[in-house]
Amino acid sequence: MLDRLQIEQLVERITKEVMIALSTQTAPMPAGCADCTGQCAVQCEAAQSIIAAGASRLALSVGVKQDPSAVAHLIDHTLLKPEATEDQIAQLCYEARKHQFIAVCVNPNWVRLCKQLLHGSKVKLATVIGFPLGAHATETKVFEAAQAIKDGADELDMVINIGALKAGDFETVERDIHAVVEVAHTLGGIVKVIIEAALLSDDEKTQACILAKGAGADYVKTSTGFGPGGATAHDVALMRRTVGAGLGVKAAGGIKDLATMTEMVKAGATRIGASAGVKIVQEVSVAAAATPLAVPAASRA
Amino acid sequence: MLDRLQIEQLVERITKEVMIALSTQTAPMPAGCADCTGQCAVQCEAAQSIIAAGASRLALSVGVKQDPSAVAHLIDHTLLKPEATEDQIAQLCYEARKHQFIAVCVNPNWVRLCKQLLHGSKVKLATVIGFPLGAHATETKVFEAAQAIKDGADELDMVINIGALKAGDFETVERDIHAVVEVAHTLGGIVKVIIEAALLSDDEKTQACILAKGAGADYVKTSTGFGPGGATAHDVALMRRTVGAGLGVKAAGGIKDLATMTEMVKAGATRIGASAGVKIVQEVSVAAAATPLAVPAASRA
Repeated sequence: MLDRLQIEQLVERITKEVMIALSTQTAPMPAGCADCTGQCAVQCEAAQSIIAAGASRLALSVGVKQDPSAVAHLIDHTLLKPEATEDQIAQLCYEARKHQFIAVCVNPNWVRLCKQLLHGSKVKLATVIGFPLGAHATETKVFEAAQAIKDGADELDMVINIGALKAGDFETVERDIHAVVEVAHTLGGIVKVIIEAALLSDDEKTQACILAKGAGADYVKTSTGFGPGGATAHDVALMRRTVGAGLGVKAAGGIKDLATMTEMVKAGATRIGASAGVKIVQEVSVAAAATPLAVPAASRA
Repeated sequence: MLDRLQIEQLVERITKEVMIALSTQTAPMPAGCADCTGQCAVQCEAAQSIIAAGASRLALSVGVKQDPSAVAHLIDHTLLKPEATEDQIAQLCYEARKHQFIAVCVNPNWVRLCKQLLHGSKVKLATVIGFPLGAHATETKVFEAAQAIKDGADELDMVINIGALKAGDFETVERDIHAVVEVAHTLGGIVKVIIEAALLSDDEKTQACILAKGAGADYVKTSTGFGPGGATAHDVALMRRTVGAGLGVKAAGGIKDLATMTEMVKAGATRIGASAGVKIVQEVSVAAAATPLAVPAASRA
């Protein structure tokens, strides 16, 4: 059995290797990082965020399932059903504080309430923009984004103009994303761009990710959860390959258990959207109690 | 066989009878209409709109299926799929002009284009607000409504705050509707209030209709077409009973043929939302060619 320190050292080692591997991908390196040996990471905010995500990803993907809070730190605890009531939203926020989910994700009409309910916690507040069809006027998406951040949102999950993408009108798609990114960044929020992968061909998924990256998005996200299909490992891997290490990838839609979540993380997801977060975290606890740590082959060599 | 004039006289007679029947329902009569014999209808704008709708309804429900344009005049020719392309929207507008549908219904990002494509026709331009979840901030719905009318929309199909209704927070529901109605009426538009009936109990459906009416809505509408169920005759009848004759009732969601449309109209619908409008109108033409007019029993007496 490895002890806690050994696990952390193992995670750190793997993380650094991943950092180096990621740095060889297509993502442009931050200025001054070209000669990075991994040592500068302690001073580099961008690297820190990648390490944070990478550490959790690796911890999960190599079988370190002892730490429910590390798993929770990847999950946007989500409730987007239109019939959700105030009591259910309050329960969501309570669970997010208890299990230390990285964020709650709710519809815009609940942002003010959640802001109050999450006061004093580290749980971030995510909401959705132009959701779930993405077919709103750009002006409305921008208004909704600004309103949401003023109401207390930290993160905005916006849906692209899918019809414009389908028609090859990439300029409209990118302008739409960029307008939301601009207002969000100005007001201190981040943007996850939902491409609704189940409606797209692989070429269209790739194109959507390129446009999102070009428009300054912080994450690309697979699905709304209201479309004809949810996240798949294939789509997550494709999206990760396309955006490189510089952006987050959020897998959402149909992730109901730890096995599916692990599959998504292995494929490259750095954030998970799920309404089954509590169940998933409980699975981690059960697994930790029942199973001795599986040491990855690499670390035994 | 009846000739065209006889059909029109028949429709007019039935319409007047319906006017009288409707006037005995719960809807408050417009000032001065208490002693209405039906004669004032030629001067009364409210009565005219009811007659217009009633005539079409009756024409359809008693079996006058010879006139595709009367049927088309009840249909919002609808395309709300998020992946719809510009070419498909253009096709929709072309079909609406050709078959004289009363309106097209499209997502807000297409309003400006449709305004151009429908220029010079009588086809109205409907769009959707807070669609399809209704869980946007009221401020965003108001902004979206104003933007849509400025872009050229005549009619706004808005979704209520379903969660607030479920929680019994009727004040929030009505305020949300009223805010959209106010901006729409100020700018010359009308509002259809979508209650998403499939998510509601009968009591909640009734309450939603009362709130919509109280908030000044012009129509109540059954469904978004994106929820767990579409229009049912039961819901349409319940909504018609609740709002009386003063408001329109729009049935939408899953209306794919003339038989279903007829069922909705018989139950009290004065507008139909359908993406199958062309097929339905073609069914009318086929029926007209194949079937001699069925004269209602009442007119034979």
